[in-house]
Amino acid sequence: MDRLDALNERCRQFAVDRDWLQYHTTKNLAMALAGEVGELLAELQWLTPEEASAVMGDTAAGPRVRAEFGDVVIYLMRLADVLGIDPVQAAHDKLDGSERRYTVAEYRGSARKAPPLTDSGDQTGA
Amino acid sequence: MDRLDALNERCRQFAVDRDWLQYHTTKNLAMALAGEVGELLAELQWLTPEEASAVMGDTAAGPRVRAEFGDVVIYLMRLADVLGIDPVQAAHDKLDGSERRYTVAEYRGSARKAPPLTDSGDQTGA
Amino acid sequence: MDRLDALNERCRQFAVDRDWLQYHTTKNLAMALAGEVGELLAELQWLTPEEASAVMGDTAAGPRVRAEFGDVVIYLMRLADVLGIDPVQAAHDKLDGSERRYTVAEYRGSARKAPPLTDSGDQTGA
Amino acid sequence: MDRLDALNERCRQFAVDRDWLQYHTTKNLAMALAGEVGELLAELQWLTPEEASAVMGDTAAGPRVRAEFGDVVIYLMRLADVLGIDPVQAAHDKLDGSERRYTVAEYRGSARKAPPLTDSGDQTGA
Repeated sequence: MDRLDALNERCRQFAVDRDWLQYHTTKNLAMALAGEVGELLAELQWLTPEEASAVMGDTAAGPRVRAEFGDVVIYLMRLADVLGIDPVQAAHDKLDGSERRYTVAEYRGSARKAPPLTDSGDQTGA
Repeated sequence: MDRLDALNERCRQFAVDRDWLQYHTTKNLAMALAGEVGELLAELQWLTPEEASAVMGDTAAGPRVRAEFGDVVIYLMRLADVLGIDPVQAAHDKLDGSERRYTVAEYRGSARKAPPLTDSGDQTGA
Repeated sequence: MDRLDALNERCRQFAVDRDWLQYHTTKNLAMALAGEVGELLAELQWLTPEEASAVMGDTAAGPRVRAEFGDVVIYLMRLADVLGIDPVQAAHDKLDGSERRYTVAEYRGSARKAPPLTDSGDQTGA
Repeated sequence: MDRLDALNERCRQFAVDRDWLQYHTTKNLAMALAGEVGELLAELQWLTPEEASAVMGDTAAGPRVRAEFGDVVIYLMRLADVLGIDPVQAAHDKLDGSERRYTVAEYRGSARKAPPLTDSGDQTGA
C-alpha cells in the first residue's frame, strides 16, 4: 500500500470510529473542503507577497499554515473516497489535457486563459 | 520516487516549461486553489444529496467533476511545492492532533466542534 | 445617503481608523471575502438540508450564521469600494444578461447551465 | 422600497419565474456563493498586486470582474432571502462587535487577529 492509500485509509477510519460517515456526503465534504481552503486563505490574506512566500519560516504562522494545509488534504482525501476518484490519476489526466490546451509555443510566459478543448481533445487541427 | 512525488515533479515541470513559476507565488496559488474548489462546488451545487452521491455515474457530470477534482489536486501540489510542505505528512500530523481533540468517547456520532487543543496538545488531563 | 452607502462609509472608516487601508488591496480583500464565505459554509456543512433551512431558528447556530454573513457583507463592501463597483448596479446589470441568457421558455424548472452570451449580448437571433 | 429591497425582490422573482426556488435551498445557495467567489478570485489570481488594483481600468478584465462581482451579490441576496437575514443590518451588528474587539488603541496598524469576544461582548473590563 503506498502512502497515499495509507492516508486515505486512516482518514476513512477516523470517520468510521466516530460514526461520522453519516455526515460525509458528497456535498457536505465539498463544503468542508471549501471551508478549510477558506481558513488557509485567511492565514495568508493580509501578508505581503514577500511575507507569504516566507511564511513557513515564521514560527507563529508557519505551523498554522501547515495545520490548515493538512485539513485541506484530509477533506480532499475524504471527498476522493466518497466519489471513488484516485486524486493522483485525476490530476495526471487533467494535465494530459492541459498539455494539449496550453502548448508551450503559444502560452510560454502568458497567464491568459486558453479556449476549452474540443470534444476530440485536440484543438490544434493537427 | 513514489507516485505523489512523481505528480509533484510533473506539475512543477509543466509550470517551468511555460515560464509560469513567476505566477506561482504563495498567495496566487492559494487563490487558484480556492478558485478551483469553487468550480468543483459549482458542479455539485444544484444537485440533490442523492444526485450528488451518484454524480460519478452520470456520463455528463461525472467527467466534469473528475476534471475539476484534478485541477484542485494540481494547485494543491503546486502550493505544497512552493511552501515546502509534504501534503501527506501534514495530513497525518493534523490527524494526530484531531485524534486527541475528538476522542471517540466524547464525539461519537456528534458533529459539534471541539475546543482547540491547548499548547501541550493534550486536553484530556491524562 | 441610502443605507448601503452608509454601510460602505462605516466599513471604510473602520479601516481608516485602524490604519488598515494598507492591507485592503484588491487581492487581499478578495482572499478575505473567500475566507469569510468559507467560515459561513463551515457553519452549514454538517447540517441536513432540513436543519440548514431552519438554522436561523437555532439559538446556538443562528447567531453564528448571522455573524458570518455579516463578515461576508463587510468584505464585499470593502472590495466594492476599492474596485469602485456599485454592488447593486453590478447585480442588476448581471441580471439583465441572465434574463436574456436564461429565457423562461427554455430554462423553466431546469438547473442546466446556459451557453455564454455572444458579444452582442443576444443569443436569440431576434 | 430602497434599492437593496428592490434588488432582493428582482433576484427572487428571477428564480420564481424559472421555477428555481426548488434549487435555492440554504446549502445550495451557500455553495453557489462560494462558487461565484471562486470565479471572482480566478479573475484576479495571476495579476500582480498593482495589476489587480488597476483591473477595473482594463477593458478586457474589468467587465469580467464586474460581472463576477454581480454574480456574488445576486447569490448573497438569495441566501439572505432564504435565511431571513437583512444583509446591511447583519454587517452593522458585526461591526458593533468588531469595534469593541479591535480597539483603535490596541490594533492600529496591526493585522493580527483579536481573541474572540466574551459572552458579555466586552473584553475591555470597562
